[in-house]
Amino acid sequence: MTERLSKIETNCDMGEGFGKWKMGPDEELMQYIDAANIACGYHAGDPSLMLKTVRLAKKHGVKAGAHPGLPDLFGFGRRKMEIDPGDMYAMILYQVGALKAMLDAEGVPLSHIKPHGELFFYMTRDPVIRSAVLDAAAHYKVPVYGCKNEGWASMCKEKGIYFQEELYVDIDYTKEGEMVSVAKSKPAIPEVIQEKIILVAEEDNTIDVDGNKLRIGFEGNPFSVCLHSDMPTTLENVKAARKAVNEINVKKFP
Amino acid sequence: MTERLSKIETNCDMGEGFGKWKMGPDEELMQYIDAANIACGYHAGDPSLMLKTVRLAKKHGVKAGAHPGLPDLFGFGRRKMEIDPGDMYAMILYQVGALKAMLDAEGVPLSHIKPHGELFFYMTRDPVIRSAVLDAAAHYKVPVYGCKNEGWASMCKEKGIYFQEELYVDIDYTKEGEMVSVAKSKPAIPEVIQEKIILVAEEDNTIDVDGNKLRIGFEGNPFSVCLHSDMPTTLENVKAARKAVNEINVKKFP
Amino acid sequence: MTERLSKIETNCDMGEGFGKWKMGPDEELMQYIDAANIACGYHAGDPSLMLKTVRLAKKHGVKAGAHPGLPDLFGFGRRKMEIDPGDMYAMILYQVGALKAMLDAEGVPLSHIKPHGELFFYMTRDPVIRSAVLDAAAHYKVPVYGCKNEGWASMCKEKGIYFQEELYVDIDYTKEGEMVSVAKSKPAIPEVIQEKIILVAEEDNTIDVDGNKLRIGFEGNPFSVCLHSDMPTTLENVKAARKAVNEINVKKFP
Amino acid sequence: MTERLSKIETNCDMGEGFGKWKMGPDEELMQYIDAANIACGYHAGDPSLMLKTVRLAKKHGVKAGAHPGLPDLFGFGRRKMEIDPGDMYAMILYQVGALKAMLDAEGVPLSHIKPHGELFFYMTRDPVIRSAVLDAAAHYKVPVYGCKNEGWASMCKEKGIYFQEELYVDIDYTKEGEMVSVAKSKPAIPEVIQEKIILVAEEDNTIDVDGNKLRIGFEGNPFSVCLHSDMPTTLENVKAARKAVNEINVKKFP
Repeated sequence: MTERLSKIETNCDMGEGFGKWKMGPDEELMQYIDAANIACGYHAGDPSLMLKTVRLAKKHGVKAGAHPGLPDLFGFGRRKMEIDPGDMYAMILYQVGALKAMLDAEGVPLSHIKPHGELFFYMTRDPVIRSAVLDAAAHYKVPVYGCKNEGWASMCKEKGIYFQEELYVDIDYTKEGEMVSVAKSKPAIPEVIQEKIILVAEEDNTIDVDGNKLRIGFEGNPFSVCLHSDMPTTLENVKAARKAVNEINVKKFP
Repeated sequence: MTERLSKIETNCDMGEGFGKWKMGPDEELMQYIDAANIACGYHAGDPSLMLKTVRLAKKHGVKAGAHPGLPDLFGFGRRKMEIDPGDMYAMILYQVGALKAMLDAEGVPLSHIKPHGELFFYMTRDPVIRSAVLDAAAHYKVPVYGCKNEGWASMCKEKGIYFQEELYVDIDYTKEGEMVSVAKSKPAIPEVIQEKIILVAEEDNTIDVDGNKLRIGFEGNPFSVCLHSDMPTTLENVKAARKAVNEINVKKFP
Repeated sequence: MTERLSKIETNCDMGEGFGKWKMGPDEELMQYIDAANIACGYHAGDPSLMLKTVRLAKKHGVKAGAHPGLPDLFGFGRRKMEIDPGDMYAMILYQVGALKAMLDAEGVPLSHIKPHGELFFYMTRDPVIRSAVLDAAAHYKVPVYGCKNEGWASMCKEKGIYFQEELYVDIDYTKEGEMVSVAKSKPAIPEVIQEKIILVAEEDNTIDVDGNKLRIGFEGNPFSVCLHSDMPTTLENVKAARKAVNEINVKKFP
Repeated sequence: MTERLSKIETNCDMGEGFGKWKMGPDEELMQYIDAANIACGYHAGDPSLMLKTVRLAKKHGVKAGAHPGLPDLFGFGRRKMEIDPGDMYAMILYQVGALKAMLDAEGVPLSHIKPHGELFFYMTRDPVIRSAVLDAAAHYKVPVYGCKNEGWASMCKEKGIYFQEELYVDIDYTKEGEMVSVAKSKPAIPEVIQEKIILVAEEDNTIDVDGNKLRIGFEGNPFSVCLHSDMPTTLENVKAARKAVNEINVKKFP
């Protein structure tokens, strides 16, 4: 399994509608990204949309990962909920397993697992929950994606999981380098996204919520840029990121 | 894959509670059965209960199969619903894949797939739906269980699926040999269950809803006896069936 | 209670999002309609959206009615489901009662009840279900809205309910005068909508799916024009209808 | 509205099944209690069960109150969830309104509102949530039931709500007089329940989790004894409480 990225990539949450309701412009976005994080029916998504999204990723040669979340369609998986660690372990198996069935049916490998929204924050905050989720993820032997975090990195290592650090460019970082939730971030415009990607690639720094430089610590390695599919300017954001990433890859990771 | 049964077996629906609500006495029943049909969260079951049931089956050496149903917790998957065939295909993958994740995590093979309640009747009535479900099931290369039925048998054969015919002894058959739903059947007592199993094993006949003999057509082959876990006398039924099956197996399939 | 309309009006389904997901452009539409049919959480809608929609209707002086549906968020209440009549009666009380609580809190009267999607078709097809729904509706002593239908009209009369006949102009009628579902209709453009309203007002005819004239039978009485909020050109449709209705009202129902 | 109790009463959570799943022995319990707290579909209950429970209360002359909870069928409303106060206000209206519809249809008055499980603890912990729930409850002009609590008592007073203090006898109190959750309490046996009721009635004390006397502070006024319907010995508990309450009422509140 070649886990380490050889180039900078972009990833995007996909399949986050439900039934008749749509979220992002998935069909268009899929043309500009490298990796799709596919919602698994808990915070968004339904079986038919999951399968449709798997097929769309396959068509565009985009890597297909699982995007499990908290069981909260109403709150889009962005509300805090207390979950028993045993329940959490089972819920992650349930969601990733359901997606894997669709990938297997389409002959597409599971590329990675990326926890959604409040599940990410819950794991960051609570090592018991982090352990439950990573124990479930470890069965799949694929990288786990997440915002750069000491607790994640060390626990992934212990469990034999490759932790793929992400860069966030359409939401904010605190000055301590912690991710700010979508609800509390200022939505970014395409120009800012482009600048931030270039800044990280060139000097390993981004700009925090106060406008100051913040060391990211990728140390020259390729990284994965996460873009949200439910922003006011999502499609423009993704195109801008694509352009910036392509230019840097030509120069630094040919 | 050894698919054909070498002995008569009993199977039982398991894990059909939800959250704090329980259905059958699973812990006790698991000691008396050969195959567990594990609910996958659509008509009943939740991830934690699925995992618990998988572990219980593993502990007792009971075969673990998937028991997918219609998305209907309120109606326990026993109400008619119109489902788009594409949605149905995706829903079956979702449910079986979710269970498979738990089986994989526990190192237990998926033994079979058995459609629940109205899903069974829907498939029997509508060949398009039957095809959608069996297309999804075919990815798993395990037997599909169901009440003896021409349409099922021939379509399974076309799709390369082994169709394991079942005997129902705690609900009724019409004189045409069709299964009567649980709601419309007279619940059976243990003695009747025992008699019916012996009758089928000895002369390939059961008793229909009118009290007349009904040819089953197993033609001397081992079969699987299905027992419901939500009957008034479930535990006694299952014990009675176990005893009858053991006695016949000693004589006929040693 | 003044039930009979004194002018032609327009009504529109509102509040048909769920959580983070939106359906129609409710804020804009509310400016152009006379009556809002507010989804009650079964086919769409959630408590917060219901309350928000009630307040929006209040702000614009739009009549607020209940828009109960089948329990089917995934299928948007447009799939056939078998419901026990007793369950149906309780489900209608549940939904309308929940909305009424919000109306009461805002000091807005419940104006009418309009069954959604497949619930409408189920009631039209099955008199037992029709009776269960209307028995629940009868507690509220408000008009029930629906497409012109003999079975509805006579049963409403029996139960002491005023049946407000509607005109559909953005979906099709069969030559027998039956409504075609949204999925099977050709979406209408604003010009056609305008023409159809004028045609009915002037000569009591519309155009059926085959292009032939179809007698509607309003016999010169004011009627309610239903417009869907999830059409490709919803906002334009509603504006066009508003304009046509205003012009006719000036002439015929000043 | 006569709000203050003239006698000691017993109240019990009722209708806490879902679909085919049952919780307590409601039919039997209803014969021994004075007030039923009817689940409203969020933590348990469904429309048909709500209506059935309303009719059962009516038959036995038992007061019918609303028992709203958090939207958490899987966790039975006993898990912590972060809810926006605006969402909470709307959810309470939704649930109580739904129940009120059934009561209105049956000609039974809404007697009281009692928050369930974690909703109770959330309100106790967080004054913004407490305010949101009580704002919704205030529309109904009925007593709100809850374990004795300063924050509740004063806020109810501000909002013009009569706060009916309850005594818990089948779960534990901390030495500070706070209620311990069902999961963390030792289930009580009927004898202990009887003793505790008598102790409170006679000397205004109960026994805390450490076995020490704890002042309750009813100061000789009648109170409402809450009994859970999902305990191992629920029916015996309720009968024992009934007997103790009857005996005290004869003596102290004839």
